[in-house]
Amino acid sequence: MNMSNATLLNRQWFYVKRPQDRVSAEHYDLRESALDTTLSTNEVIVRARYISVDPYMRIQQHERNTYDVPHPLGIVQRSGVVGQVVASASERFRADDWVLSASGWQLFDKCHANDLQLINPQTAPVSTALGVLGMPGRTAWFGLMDAGRPRPGDTLVVSGAAGAVGSLVAQFGKRAGCRVIGIAGGAAKCSYLINTLKLDGAVDYRAFTSTEALAEELQRQSGGVDIYFDNVGGMVTDAVIPLIKRRARIVICGTISQYDGGLDRPDLGPRFLQHMLFQRATIQGILARDFAHRMDEMRATVEPWVKNRDIVFEETFVDGFEQLPQALNMLFDGKNLGKLLVRV
Amino acid sequence: MNMSNATLLNRQWFYVKRPQDRVSAEHYDLRESALDTTLSTNEVIVRARYISVDPYMRIQQHERNTYDVPHPLGIVQRSGVVGQVVASASERFRADDWVLSASGWQLFDKCHANDLQLINPQTAPVSTALGVLGMPGRTAWFGLMDAGRPRPGDTLVVSGAAGAVGSLVAQFGKRAGCRVIGIAGGAAKCSYLINTLKLDGAVDYRAFTSTEALAEELQRQSGGVDIYFDNVGGMVTDAVIPLIKRRARIVICGTISQYDGGLDRPDLGPRFLQHMLFQRATIQGILARDFAHRMDEMRATVEPWVKNRDIVFEETFVDGFEQLPQALNMLFDGKNLGKLLVRV
Repeated sequence: MNMSNATLLNRQWFYVKRPQDRVSAEHYDLRESALDTTLSTNEVIVRARYISVDPYMRIQQHERNTYDVPHPLGIVQRSGVVGQVVASASERFRADDWVLSASGWQLFDKCHANDLQLINPQTAPVSTALGVLGMPGRTAWFGLMDAGRPRPGDTLVVSGAAGAVGSLVAQFGKRAGCRVIGIAGGAAKCSYLINTLKLDGAVDYRAFTSTEALAEELQRQSGGVDIYFDNVGGMVTDAVIPLIKRRARIVICGTISQYDGGLDRPDLGPRFLQHMLFQRATIQGILARDFAHRMDEMRATVEPWVKNRDIVFEETFVDGFEQLPQALNMLFDGKNLGKLLVRV
Repeated sequence: MNMSNATLLNRQWFYVKRPQDRVSAEHYDLRESALDTTLSTNEVIVRARYISVDPYMRIQQHERNTYDVPHPLGIVQRSGVVGQVVASASERFRADDWVLSASGWQLFDKCHANDLQLINPQTAPVSTALGVLGMPGRTAWFGLMDAGRPRPGDTLVVSGAAGAVGSLVAQFGKRAGCRVIGIAGGAAKCSYLINTLKLDGAVDYRAFTSTEALAEELQRQSGGVDIYFDNVGGMVTDAVIPLIKRRARIVICGTISQYDGGLDRPDLGPRFLQHMLFQRATIQGILARDFAHRMDEMRATVEPWVKNRDIVFEETFVDGFEQLPQALNMLFDGKNLGKLLVRV
């Protein structure tokens, strides 16, 4: 790239205030600044094209340590980014190369080449590096295969089944020979689960006002649960746990219903540990980062499915850099199908 | 034995009414009847000497299936028994032999020889077949070693640490190289944990009125929890779970605080599944029966410790057959140190 000017106008969303409940634009500050385009050896400037919003971001906004220290205030919101190289002082990258970076919510970033991963746009849409072939895909794959240990004939129940991780878990479960029942919010998502993802059952949790009624419908559709892959927590999980069968595996991948304050000030739910005892069941919490070193293993299996369109990897796009805080918020309203991305 | 009379006067506690809350004498009926002493081939008559009362009995009194179908009404309360042979038509047993049986709450039982296990009174007090060398010992051993996976240097927290299973888990943990903090009710038990079991810490949960204050003391003494072996549930468990460390193992062996009604009508507690996620922890429910086939493995390690008095295997005796229902009740008031037995 011909850098006619020595600076680029950068736009950045700074995380400036801890939310107590819902996160919104007031917790961020959009700033513009000049990015010096002078490159040292192995430095690369990346222009973001797809910026990720993920539920884990809300976890990191809690005051206390969660799985990590809290996201610091006063810095650019961290996130995964798919972008293109605009200038490179590395032999490994050229202008226009597609890359995965951890640049966060900013239009441009000057990175070290070691912090970038080249994306092959021939394999799949480049945005999948933030979805099915990225962190959510890894979470789904290892969460199900390693922690869930699916066997042909098992009944797998997935909460948040229309979401980025849940929709993949559900499909991986089908491919592992499970009967799969998805739980999602609203009739449209449930229709998607049945008609597009071809699941064996779908339960709209919003159609039920009591845990008991939700549990009854789940029992009717599932006939009991061998694996529960939980992205949601709260009342949905309350309804599922009493339905577990002998030696059930419960995978805790997320508790998104609790992120708006509930992590700091836990709300109350029915005690359920006796079911673990009766059924000799296990609960296991999993995080994507624990499987980062096994990405090759996941890709070896999943990439051909993506390439051949053997699985559905839905993406919901929001357009415009200025929409980032609102897009993050959409996750907690469950407005997305599949992976939610901001196109910039 | 010379059977001068063709019958024996038997005494039996029939389980006749489901308790809604606490179990008491009103749920049982003490009956006397004549036991025909005529023996078919391989039959044996056993006279009970030690009759077991165990927390699982209260679980089986719930209306719904728990880990098994409910204990039927109108039959003798099931339990483990250590007794002596009074008459035998089996080559394998002679009069006065000590045996372990599942005869339940009755003075005499006519059993098939296959349902009896010979006890060697030279190894240890015969009553230990209902304790450290029996079901509670097996539960403690495999619950800790298999599900808890202790490593030298781990911090192990045990609830119900002065009880039949907990006191063994605590000592097995010490032998596995763990720092062990016991939780029990009352100063006397805590003194027992420190002075007799030589644990590294003891917390009297009754001294705390809030979960937060209990958690603070547990954090102070433990510095965080690698393994939590839970016999109790409820507020004690609420206090421990937020203290778990990375990749903690939580073993659910019992939830005795919930047995008086809470299993049918769960009470509310703080949601905690996010901690499983943050710490990538596991919860595993275990039952003694799942390890019955590995009894030899447990005995190979634990029997020498018992023989050499390298571990403490406390027993609390209640005298008198008529005391059985009250003795069962004592478990839920936490009145026993170690294994509670009725001597008859």
